[in-house]
Amino acid sequence: MKKPSIAVDGILIKNNKILLIKRKNEPFKGKWALPGGFVEYGERVEEAVLREFEEEVGIKAKIKRLLGVYSDPNRDPRGHVISIVFLLEGEGIPKAGDDAKDAKFFDLDDLPPLAFDHDKIIRDAIKLLK
Amino acid sequence: MKKPSIAVDGILIKNNKILLIKRKNEPFKGKWALPGGFVEYGERVEEAVLREFEEEVGIKAKIKRLLGVYSDPNRDPRGHVISIVFLLEGEGIPKAGDDAKDAKFFDLDDLPPLAFDHDKIIRDAIKLLK
Repeated sequence: MKKPSIAVDGILIKNNKILLIKRKNEPFKGKWALPGGFVEYGERVEEAVLREFEEEVGIKAKIKRLLGVYSDPNRDPRGHVISIVFLLEGEGIPKAGDDAKDAKFFDLDDLPPLAFDHDKIIRDAIKLLK
Repeated sequence: MKKPSIAVDGILIKNNKILLIKRKNEPFKGKWALPGGFVEYGERVEEAVLREFEEEVGIKAKIKRLLGVYSDPNRDPRGHVISIVFLLEGEGIPKAGDDAKDAKFFDLDDLPPLAFDHDKIIRDAIKLLK
């Protein structure tokens, strides 16, 4: 039976800025997005988000807390992908790697066009942090 | 590529009692557990937990809040199953259905032997509600 895929995304917000990556691949190639990716079989979601975060932005982060679970079946054009999103904390200069073409901090009041439902996710994070 | 499965479980706690079901099938056949089941392709996790809850205990519930995501790869002997757990609210007399052989409220201070990691999940719920 076909089942949903499971992904993780990580949010690092510091000084009213959020770390985003520019997607190297489709879908949403060239758009900005939260660092993240698919959970591997046998891997905990907390491990998955920290692994993907380090692969894409070169920063070893820590989990701060769970933000939410995003499961709208239309949020990803590849099919039904459920994303579990964590707020992270970490230090360092971002350096794009893996599926990321670029990685940098954006002012929360001046975000670029975003992939998937990441605008909604970021709005939820801002609400929680306020 | 093999991927984790995704499940949901629902917690209904009222007057220091929690609603549990007796499992009709393996794994943990005959053990008590939180009402829940697998998320279907195309279904949101919030829909999935309310559907499974109604199928197993006959109560139309509502989402109160997300409790957490449980993703230890060893939590289910069938393989890697990630469970997204919600606190629910609802009224009615439980009536076992579907995969449940029985459904009833247990005092939180006197829980029966539980399936999976549901003892840990229930402890987390109690902590949050305190």
